[in-house]
Amino acid sequence: MTAQPLAGPYAPAPHPVPDDAPAAARELVERHREALEAALRAASTREYHSRYPESPSPRVYGEGAAEAGQRAFEAHLTRRFDELADQPATDAWVGSEVSPYGPALRVGYPHPDVPALMAAVTRGQAAWRDAGAEVRAAVCLEAVDRIHARSFEIAHAVMHTSGQPFVMAFQAAGPHAQDRALEAVAYALFEQRRVPASVVWEKPARGEPLRMVKDYRVVPRGVALVIGCNTFPTWNSYPGLFASLATGNAVVVKPHPRATLPLAISVAAIRGTLADSGFDPDLVTLAAEQDGEGLAKVLALDPAVRIIDYTGGPSFGAWLEQEAGAAGKVVCTEKAGVNTIVVDSTGDLRGALGNLAFSLALYSGQMCTTPQNVFVPRDGVDTDEGHLTLAEFCDRLADAVQRLTGDDSRAVELLGATVNDTVRAGAERLAGLASGVGGRLVLDSRRLQHPTYPDAVVRAPGIVQVDVAATSVYERECFGPVAIVVATDSTVQSLQRFTETVRQHGAITAAVYSTSEPVLAAARDAAADAGVALSENLTDGVYVNQTAAFSDFHGTGANPAANSAYTDGAFVASRFRVVTSRRHVS
Amino acid sequence: MTAQPLAGPYAPAPHPVPDDAPAAARELVERHREALEAALRAASTREYHSRYPESPSPRVYGEGAAEAGQRAFEAHLTRRFDELADQPATDAWVGSEVSPYGPALRVGYPHPDVPALMAAVTRGQAAWRDAGAEVRAAVCLEAVDRIHARSFEIAHAVMHTSGQPFVMAFQAAGPHAQDRALEAVAYALFEQRRVPASVVWEKPARGEPLRMVKDYRVVPRGVALVIGCNTFPTWNSYPGLFASLATGNAVVVKPHPRATLPLAISVAAIRGTLADSGFDPDLVTLAAEQDGEGLAKVLALDPAVRIIDYTGGPSFGAWLEQEAGAAGKVVCTEKAGVNTIVVDSTGDLRGALGNLAFSLALYSGQMCTTPQNVFVPRDGVDTDEGHLTLAEFCDRLADAVQRLTGDDSRAVELLGATVNDTVRAGAERLAGLASGVGGRLVLDSRRLQHPTYPDAVVRAPGIVQVDVAATSVYERECFGPVAIVVATDSTVQSLQRFTETVRQHGAITAAVYSTSEPVLAAARDAAADAGVALSENLTDGVYVNQTAAFSDFHGTGANPAANSAYTDGAFVASRFRVVTSRRHVS
Repeated sequence: MTAQPLAGPYAPAPHPVPDDAPAAARELVERHREALEAALRAASTREYHSRYPESPSPRVYGEGAAEAGQRAFEAHLTRRFDELADQPATDAWVGSEVSPYGPALRVGYPHPDVPALMAAVTRGQAAWRDAGAEVRAAVCLEAVDRIHARSFEIAHAVMHTSGQPFVMAFQAAGPHAQDRALEAVAYALFEQRRVPASVVWEKPARGEPLRMVKDYRVVPRGVALVIGCNTFPTWNSYPGLFASLATGNAVVVKPHPRATLPLAISVAAIRGTLADSGFDPDLVTLAAEQDGEGLAKVLALDPAVRIIDYTGGPSFGAWLEQEAGAAGKVVCTEKAGVNTIVVDSTGDLRGALGNLAFSLALYSGQMCTTPQNVFVPRDGVDTDEGHLTLAEFCDRLADAVQRLTGDDSRAVELLGATVNDTVRAGAERLAGLASGVGGRLVLDSRRLQHPTYPDAVVRAPGIVQVDVAATSVYERECFGPVAIVVATDSTVQSLQRFTETVRQHGAITAAVYSTSEPVLAAARDAAADAGVALSENLTDGVYVNQTAAFSDFHGTGANPAANSAYTDGAFVASRFRVVTSRRHVS
Repeated sequence: MTAQPLAGPYAPAPHPVPDDAPAAARELVERHREALEAALRAASTREYHSRYPESPSPRVYGEGAAEAGQRAFEAHLTRRFDELADQPATDAWVGSEVSPYGPALRVGYPHPDVPALMAAVTRGQAAWRDAGAEVRAAVCLEAVDRIHARSFEIAHAVMHTSGQPFVMAFQAAGPHAQDRALEAVAYALFEQRRVPASVVWEKPARGEPLRMVKDYRVVPRGVALVIGCNTFPTWNSYPGLFASLATGNAVVVKPHPRATLPLAISVAAIRGTLADSGFDPDLVTLAAEQDGEGLAKVLALDPAVRIIDYTGGPSFGAWLEQEAGAAGKVVCTEKAGVNTIVVDSTGDLRGALGNLAFSLALYSGQMCTTPQNVFVPRDGVDTDEGHLTLAEFCDRLADAVQRLTGDDSRAVELLGATVNDTVRAGAERLAGLASGVGGRLVLDSRRLQHPTYPDAVVRAPGIVQVDVAATSVYERECFGPVAIVVATDSTVQSLQRFTETVRQHGAITAAVYSTSEPVLAAARDAAADAGVALSENLTDGVYVNQTAAFSDFHGTGANPAANSAYTDGAFVASRFRVVTSRRHVS
């Protein structure tokens, strides 16, 4: 794809690069110009765009790349993460990660003295601010490229902290996360370019017009805090991290104590890029903590912190929204929800069931985008294979899941490992979930044996069927391999309950299956009312739990599951401010 | 000015107008296309742009327009505001406005039953949402045009509620406010256009590419609340009002109980436009209150309200930011601050003093943009008329103020009337302000006699001089005709104190006078650090307290005086969300 230059009177034009920008940074502006223009173009059209190939094949990444990445990962184990030894304000080394596949990682990370850290990270902020938007975007893209070069290393790190299966860890934590990072950089660049660097303003008057020069300067909000999660340490952290950095803010990355390594590698790559480009590497730091220490709270309340990006559990997320919101900080959260599928009818039963089963099984349902509630009319579903009763539909869905996960050694490459005891307990409680409300256990969550990692707890999805009256079961998130078929009076009621539950409890994803255009139109309205994105009749190689950078928004910000989206104008616009200086000119 | 069409791959393109949009609304899209494109262009270049002429001359507005406007204003007095008789949920009629010039207005306005109001205003929201961004922008622009047609009527209403002098009331509350409204509409339109209405997404694959259609739908956040202020009822309300309406939200306008009429007229004009365009007029309503009732708090806490725009005192503003911020509402506030002038040296003493005196005198300093603190080196100031001691500089400034305000009958046309007892008390306390800290009363605030309105309390600006150590005097807002010259050790200290005080107490405006390029550069850095816009060496017909729509941002959002700016991307981007629906396509 060749990038076309900006054109047209309203298209924001590139800002000038300051003469005193470091030479290395100026070189990056040249090197990455075309890639940034291509990203800007994609963000504007929302057509397909990807910079980082998702296939881990040696044909793409080169012979030996996979092995070298694995060795790089293994070299971290049982020792201090020395690449971050130059971080400021380190008062201890901490780390207690245990792979969901079994082994303890025993990697040590620098733990910060918070006041000293805050003093250190702001030191380079004025130079970073004055380098301007173009330089920051180019340096950020270079940092993503350097992260990309470590994709295999990061894939292993994510696999052994989140429990993701390897190929998914490579794709989601590697190229897909990197594309989301680039997307955030592009949005940040566009938003800053919307304000020209300077203008001559001429107001007509009697005689000579009034004439002024006005310079517009982008200034950061302050220190940005990124709070990572256990299941998607890179994918969910990069958008906020790069949006804040590209708009001039110093960024402190507080990883989940059980998923620190992927972000330590990422932060090291960014710090190296900053230093090599002539900027203070302390603009981006890792703030690792001991499990249970509560460092996120301390950092979030620090007055220097003005922006917070958070992915994680709803209770801390709600606390953050309240406390940081009350303090006037920018807070972007992604918490939890009840992702929903409305099944009305289908013209491709096999395709629909295969697609749904895959969505349920991928990473054992431990994605914030995995469907949970499946609303199906009590009367059953019309399909291309004839009418199915509700029970038949449930059984066919169970069959599809079993087909997909029946062979342990193949299934583990799809399911990965369960990440924590809460997920495991949820899977074990499945039968009780149904029996307590007079429901039916359609398919229990099966425990699989991992051929390589005997200590890994691998779980295939289970399915329960309950009545629409059993709100206590389906009106809360059951994170993990648990699907709940909810029997409704009709599709009309399904859509109504869909809107109501998402409005109240949130959702990141939703889907509908119907052969009826009026039902699809009603589903679109229901999704608009609920404020959640809708996938319709997915049967092919696109899954409801997957979104593509530059085209699909992840989250909407319009329901309680998340107060923002990856990535739209709102996600970046409040991360900086503009300060004007104006003077007469003749 | 002829508008050029959107061009270039990144320039957001117009959205399609829905086939089922009301015919009247479709006609408005055609009628206002060029004006909207011109506004979009200006918002992008920040060049001079104005749709609404600021001169009240009959050559511009037509013979008799001024008189007709005055009659229209007078016709409101002593009766119910019948144009709002069709408002929903009215449970009483209230009103207790008294002109700062003396007369009681005795106009009655509908008072709402809040739960019933909230139910009523959301009824038309789905149709307004589905009309799309283009229709909404055109209807909004039509509404501003209809407001514009009532500029003289609104000018009298503002004069007799805010105390502004007539010509200022005409300009600031009329054309200037209308240009700010159009600016908000343009920003809202641009922001929505950034997301295309639809795209075909094609991901390369082995064999046939994966192909999906994705539709993007703009959805509103909920009900928007606009809380007006006493001194600038229209200018400070229109940006939030039109930004929220243009992005699909219903808007409840809660005027200041002592400045209701200007917003009642505005709301009536908007409601008429909505109805005539085929939409529910209840999308915009006036929520008038009895003075002291506290309706703003009730409305702000209503769960249906998701966006709040506020101008007014800092204590309620801080409460709003905290409470509404904690509840995840979008909150845009403008409160108070210590606007600052740093005087280092000048090459045009007469121009500088004249400009400063005008800024201090206009509307008796009752603008949120009026300078308050004037930092001057203890050693005095180099000028084109030689070196002035600090005392000489103060006296020359006092002379300039006296020259401008010496003739009562002419000066009232610049000063207007004081708006409330707090302002009057501040002016009366001036001598005490200086003496308490060993300062000097340079010029007392003189009370003038208004030739037409004997009850009006008209005050010319007073000036005190204090030492930089007297922080208790100048580190708080003294709203009204009070200027404080602060004697510093040097310009270096002036700039340092400027940054510190603005960071801590906020400012909407700042200016510097210097003939030294290094000092000006340092002042720009200080302003960037403080997060306030800077005017340099103003001597001509531009004043530090005035900003031009489309070119100057009002506020920055980067210091405590205001958490947002009129108008940038951040001001509009969070007022709507985008809901995607996607499906396979062959």
